[in-house]
Amino acid sequence: MSRKVRCAVLGVGRLGYYHAKNLVTQIPEAEVTYVVASRIGNAERVARELDIPKWTNNPNEVFENPEIDAVIIVTPTKTHASLIKEAAKNKKHIFVDKPITETLDEADDVIKAVQENNVFCQVGFVRRFDPAFAEAKKRIDSGDIGEPLYYKGVSRDPGSPPEIYIATSGGIFLDLCIHDFDIARYLLGKEVESIQSFGKVLAHPFMNKYGDSDQALSFIKFTNGASASIEGSRNAFYGYDIRGEVVGTEGAIQIGSIKYHDNLILTKGKSYHDNIPNFQTRYEEGFILELKHFIECVQNNEKPIVDEVDGKKALEIAIAATKSYQTKKEVKL
Amino acid sequence: MSRKVRCAVLGVGRLGYYHAKNLVTQIPEAEVTYVVASRIGNAERVARELDIPKWTNNPNEVFENPEIDAVIIVTPTKTHASLIKEAAKNKKHIFVDKPITETLDEADDVIKAVQENNVFCQVGFVRRFDPAFAEAKKRIDSGDIGEPLYYKGVSRDPGSPPEIYIATSGGIFLDLCIHDFDIARYLLGKEVESIQSFGKVLAHPFMNKYGDSDQALSFIKFTNGASASIEGSRNAFYGYDIRGEVVGTEGAIQIGSIKYHDNLILTKGKSYHDNIPNFQTRYEEGFILELKHFIECVQNNEKPIVDEVDGKKALEIAIAATKSYQTKKEVKL
Amino acid sequence: MSRKVRCAVLGVGRLGYYHAKNLVTQIPEAEVTYVVASRIGNAERVARELDIPKWTNNPNEVFENPEIDAVIIVTPTKTHASLIKEAAKNKKHIFVDKPITETLDEADDVIKAVQENNVFCQVGFVRRFDPAFAEAKKRIDSGDIGEPLYYKGVSRDPGSPPEIYIATSGGIFLDLCIHDFDIARYLLGKEVESIQSFGKVLAHPFMNKYGDSDQALSFIKFTNGASASIEGSRNAFYGYDIRGEVVGTEGAIQIGSIKYHDNLILTKGKSYHDNIPNFQTRYEEGFILELKHFIECVQNNEKPIVDEVDGKKALEIAIAATKSYQTKKEVKL
Amino acid sequence: MSRKVRCAVLGVGRLGYYHAKNLVTQIPEAEVTYVVASRIGNAERVARELDIPKWTNNPNEVFENPEIDAVIIVTPTKTHASLIKEAAKNKKHIFVDKPITETLDEADDVIKAVQENNVFCQVGFVRRFDPAFAEAKKRIDSGDIGEPLYYKGVSRDPGSPPEIYIATSGGIFLDLCIHDFDIARYLLGKEVESIQSFGKVLAHPFMNKYGDSDQALSFIKFTNGASASIEGSRNAFYGYDIRGEVVGTEGAIQIGSIKYHDNLILTKGKSYHDNIPNFQTRYEEGFILELKHFIECVQNNEKPIVDEVDGKKALEIAIAATKSYQTKKEVKL
Repeated sequence: MSRKVRCAVLGVGRLGYYHAKNLVTQIPEAEVTYVVASRIGNAERVARELDIPKWTNNPNEVFENPEIDAVIIVTPTKTHASLIKEAAKNKKHIFVDKPITETLDEADDVIKAVQENNVFCQVGFVRRFDPAFAEAKKRIDSGDIGEPLYYKGVSRDPGSPPEIYIATSGGIFLDLCIHDFDIARYLLGKEVESIQSFGKVLAHPFMNKYGDSDQALSFIKFTNGASASIEGSRNAFYGYDIRGEVVGTEGAIQIGSIKYHDNLILTKGKSYHDNIPNFQTRYEEGFILELKHFIECVQNNEKPIVDEVDGKKALEIAIAATKSYQTKKEVKL
Repeated sequence: MSRKVRCAVLGVGRLGYYHAKNLVTQIPEAEVTYVVASRIGNAERVARELDIPKWTNNPNEVFENPEIDAVIIVTPTKTHASLIKEAAKNKKHIFVDKPITETLDEADDVIKAVQENNVFCQVGFVRRFDPAFAEAKKRIDSGDIGEPLYYKGVSRDPGSPPEIYIATSGGIFLDLCIHDFDIARYLLGKEVESIQSFGKVLAHPFMNKYGDSDQALSFIKFTNGASASIEGSRNAFYGYDIRGEVVGTEGAIQIGSIKYHDNLILTKGKSYHDNIPNFQTRYEEGFILELKHFIECVQNNEKPIVDEVDGKKALEIAIAATKSYQTKKEVKL
Repeated sequence: MSRKVRCAVLGVGRLGYYHAKNLVTQIPEAEVTYVVASRIGNAERVARELDIPKWTNNPNEVFENPEIDAVIIVTPTKTHASLIKEAAKNKKHIFVDKPITETLDEADDVIKAVQENNVFCQVGFVRRFDPAFAEAKKRIDSGDIGEPLYYKGVSRDPGSPPEIYIATSGGIFLDLCIHDFDIARYLLGKEVESIQSFGKVLAHPFMNKYGDSDQALSFIKFTNGASASIEGSRNAFYGYDIRGEVVGTEGAIQIGSIKYHDNLILTKGKSYHDNIPNFQTRYEEGFILELKHFIECVQNNEKPIVDEVDGKKALEIAIAATKSYQTKKEVKL
Repeated sequence: MSRKVRCAVLGVGRLGYYHAKNLVTQIPEAEVTYVVASRIGNAERVARELDIPKWTNNPNEVFENPEIDAVIIVTPTKTHASLIKEAAKNKKHIFVDKPITETLDEADDVIKAVQENNVFCQVGFVRRFDPAFAEAKKRIDSGDIGEPLYYKGVSRDPGSPPEIYIATSGGIFLDLCIHDFDIARYLLGKEVESIQSFGKVLAHPFMNKYGDSDQALSFIKFTNGASASIEGSRNAFYGYDIRGEVVGTEGAIQIGSIKYHDNLILTKGKSYHDNIPNFQTRYEEGFILELKHFIECVQNNEKPIVDEVDGKKALEIAIAATKSYQTKKEVKL
């Protein structure tokens, strides 16, 4: 396909709007022709703002439209399974935000639909496209640190999302740590054997109501002898703090930092740099690069580097982590 | 102008090609419709590669075409004055690579033509658009370091350009240090009163033939009591090293670093990061942002933050620096 | 006591020799008059090298000597309890390497002896005296990060000690992680409620024989709502890597780095700094400062900031960690 | 000499007191037996505080005392020449603060006296003993950066000394930049051919009275084709900022930083570290190491790595810099 990829964006929440805007302003190879939102007014507002010609509150309008090549699904998780299956059946390529579905059964259905219909389904694990993590992957694959043995992930939100979000988020392992579960598999190149997870409420007492934690830790054993430690936190009042480390038999890589700009400000007695304040700034490039990758894969008929099977595997680990946290036992996969 | 800005790129050397590609792939608000090069084959090759519909070796074709809004001039410096004047006369907005012209008289002509014809002329001082330098400017302007007193600039190329380039480059002050002369004015918000410059050949003996240096230093006095020290070098065998510092009455800013990626690689006994290898990687964002700024200024009918007068002033300082270097005396402006 | 503190060093292994040398060359307020080693030849060799007047293989000679004020015990752990008790009975102040004893019962005996005899007993948790950790403590205590909520410790050895050492080391939690258990209590200012620990052998298969791990992780819950995650590793082939983080309600502190010197070496394409190679270089200052502190406490009749009770508490946590690792269950203290 | 080196400290100003204290508390191989100060009360006060047995206001008492091996001269510069000569005549080894003397003629006299009497004379260029600069020297000498071509020095005081000090300081080149002149020679391993220097008053108007500057810059040409740029400043309101860079044919070294502690404090929106506040903290180790070196040289009868001839050469460069600044001309040495 040498022509532009014609896309519809489903969902115009914070991230849906962001993806729509990136497609319009940053990716000349894409053409967004439809905005879909359950409230038609929201769809129209975003469409007008971004100069997108059509909007609707009926996703089938998009699925049945032969002029749409791909859909970007950024709707609540519980709608993912049916939307993906419908899109696949109609031969639309799919970009879907994580987690791929709510349950493993749904994930299996989705995988079947995607594969039977020969479409691509990329899951929004943006960290794989962050320049620092992507560069780390390249180095590990080229043997720079020998055999990777250990991944340490730190993912700290600058605070908790609102209680209403937490109530239906599925918990910190599914909502936050899932990014690390995916990137650990990706960087180590191995599959998870077992996981044991912990959590505690340190700063947001309301989480106790939902059995959720604001400080979580998982210890993962991988097949073939690697391991990982994954910290998730809602308590980084100083900023949005995403870092990783991979230790190998001949070296290690430290990935990412809290530094926002390449400036050091020196004031009386102390020197400071600004912190990365939120996920939008942290992943500014990653969000563009993951969409570019998806659009290019569709254009070139190549499989994305993160697909529906990766989506299911990360979900499986996150569900096991949640179970381990609840039962206080190691859970095998 | 709410529609796209229709551009012609004049010159397809390394930087011309780069600008053309950025306009096509990174800036949806621009539409490149013409490539101009003195050798028609080069123009055609670039046009075909980037899907640009027209090419020519005759710049007048562009100037006379009413469907062109703006020209991007990336030709040899000696052609700048006549091309800018012709473009201005034809009411084309102009983006021109530094230095604006070869002589101050030419610069005066150019300023006259631009201003009489009410077009914009942005000069390619990319450093103003580098996120770190731009952020520094913002902080200085908001008073974060008090009154700025002193600028220290380090601009080190990873080696010398080829001898054939050096032969006609105008020397290190005009070719390299001119970026610091501009940014020093910009960050300090002051004008130059006098300059004294030095140079020595440390690593590239062929430069002696041209009276040029590979290690240069200038000391600048500004009106109202500030000063600057500007180092230019062709001897940074380790990478492309651009840094700045501004010291003010209440603090200071260190700008930029040699770090390429946000990864630290730890090997037996030592830890390293990659260096920025060349100007393309150092200014990857800056090159896009300066063109975006130009296109937006044209669309919104707003004056660019760096214009023909800035172009002349930087040229004036660079010429004075060269004279000081040659006469071994302080030169007043 | 305004005069010098007269010391005897018991044990001349790697660390014993190091302490003896530091006392002689770095701490003018101390006077080492005795070296004790089970093999008299070793005692004599060290005494002659460091110009220490007396040596013996009989510790009682030291205990009974009224001219000895303090003993520095750097012998195998299994000898600690009896040596400390004997020293205390003879009114000698005691500096003892960690862990204080092998068992909690022994620790109780030791505490009783020390307190009944009104002597001081400082335990060698050197990290408390490392300038970076000490500075962090000061800042936390002065409220710079609000209420501390979370400690993250990373302690990585550049490889495993020899098998013969591992065989009797008590395991990674007792031998290595105990430093983090102590510093977590110290920095958070709270006591441990429960711990769950994991381990895996990633790079040193011989450890399986001893039920030991080379990659360990503990999750600690503290009274009053704080938590900690403690990583211990023998797999940092790149250097000796000790870092900590404390996250509080209003900020956080990152403590320590792998950087050895304040130099950055820039070579073609990459820039590097040397890594800290081993614990001697990492704690060069800490080892001196902990002895200075002990000597000053003795001179000024002030209690050391880390005493026999801290020694017992860290031991208690380490034993619980080992039990948790073996039983795969959370262990309450 | 296997016994302790018996020293007298002459001068108990800020630095004299500091040296005396370091000798007493940090260098067991030294024994300070005399304090000399022009006001006897000052001598007595320091002697009593540091437990030094004797004090006097008559330096001859020290010179004539056969039990004194070495003198530490930290008196005003104008007294250096006669004190050194007298000390040398009496076979005392000499440690003298920089600059060695006020004039080059005096320096010649001093060199003659020192050499005829076969004593050592170490000049207090502390930077040579700073661990970062010392490590840089080692790396350069071992060829890590190829042939060194260029030294860039930044020496910034956090403000001006009091006017009364400036009045007799000899100016910024003699008082401050002299450290860089020495270290440039040392790191490049070359001699100065010519220097041109500039200065301006940016923040301390009273300096105009004395023809002094608070912002200075020198460009130095070395024999055999190296060069250096040396910045001296009294305007670093943020801290005491000493850094160096050496660029060589195969790499470069950046030396030193403004960071005080190995902690990063993360607060809402920004992360900071403390700055080095003053020369005492910056050179805490260097001040001890230079005295240790002196004492060891005396004990082992080895020449110090920085001697009376280095003292003269740095003085010569500083005097040339001052002349260049005053005459606005390049000065050859």
